[in-house]
Amino acid sequence: MEEPLLSQLGETLGREMPLSRAMQIETVSWDGQRLAMKMPLEPNRNHQYSAFAGSLNALCTVVGWGTVFMLLSVKGQAGNIVIRRGTIRYLRPVRSATIVATGLTIDPEQLAYFYELFDSKGKSKLDIGAEIADDQGTYVSFKGSYVVHS
Amino acid sequence: MEEPLLSQLGETLGREMPLSRAMQIETVSWDGQRLAMKMPLEPNRNHQYSAFAGSLNALCTVVGWGTVFMLLSVKGQAGNIVIRRGTIRYLRPVRSATIVATGLTIDPEQLAYFYELFDSKGKSKLDIGAEIADDQGTYVSFKGSYVVHS
Repeated sequence: MEEPLLSQLGETLGREMPLSRAMQIETVSWDGQRLAMKMPLEPNRNHQYSAFAGSLNALCTVVGWGTVFMLLSVKGQAGNIVIRRGTIRYLRPVRSATIVATGLTIDPEQLAYFYELFDSKGKSKLDIGAEIADDQGTYVSFKGSYVVHS
Repeated sequence: MEEPLLSQLGETLGREMPLSRAMQIETVSWDGQRLAMKMPLEPNRNHQYSAFAGSLNALCTVVGWGTVFMLLSVKGQAGNIVIRRGTIRYLRPVRSATIVATGLTIDPEQLAYFYELFDSKGKSKLDIGAEIADDQGTYVSFKGSYVVHS
């Protein structure tokens, strides 16, 4: 089971990024490649009771960061993970009481190269997509480029 | 003097985006086109005492939002301002105790078109660049696309 790793990610985030506590960001699930994280609307809202763009981007940024953390953790590895670039589209206002961002499936070749580079060089990089979506469609679409070194 | 408008922006932000209070975001200056805003590192740091990427992006997002707010306010106008897209590059870790993000000069033709569209249609759009930089160079480079409707 990877539950202990997911708990470890939650603890690491709260410790390493204090603002994530003010945002009340929490881990939801990990299926071996796709990480889901959530936050409540209330501390992250604007006065129109939709979510503040800065919070939506931070949640997606953390999903990407946490995905790299989990991809290394499941192999018993760890490193210093940093985001280099991010692109985000805010398609529709987010008004749900609980906001969930989920990582997108990673291209298998890109993932293999990520591990290969980390094993051989002690540093690597990976692009990770994430989105905030429900059965009504996509609200936020995010892509981040992360680097890691051991 | 536009000092009262800058104060109004600060009050509006604190009221409309509660997280900006947790981040301790404050207005710094407005030169008629370029807005500067700041936040302290402490509530926005990660465990390595550099700034959390989510906070850096939120600060730049708010600078862009505030720029549109000021561009309308100086003409006695107001509207509902929303960011549609954002792109950010994190070039180097930000470790200064006070972090300042500053808007970039807006192309005069784009600015004229922004006002023209708002006056004729009651809605408009504007791309705004911002950066976090000092005499050592640029740490963060941001570009956001904003829309506004009256």
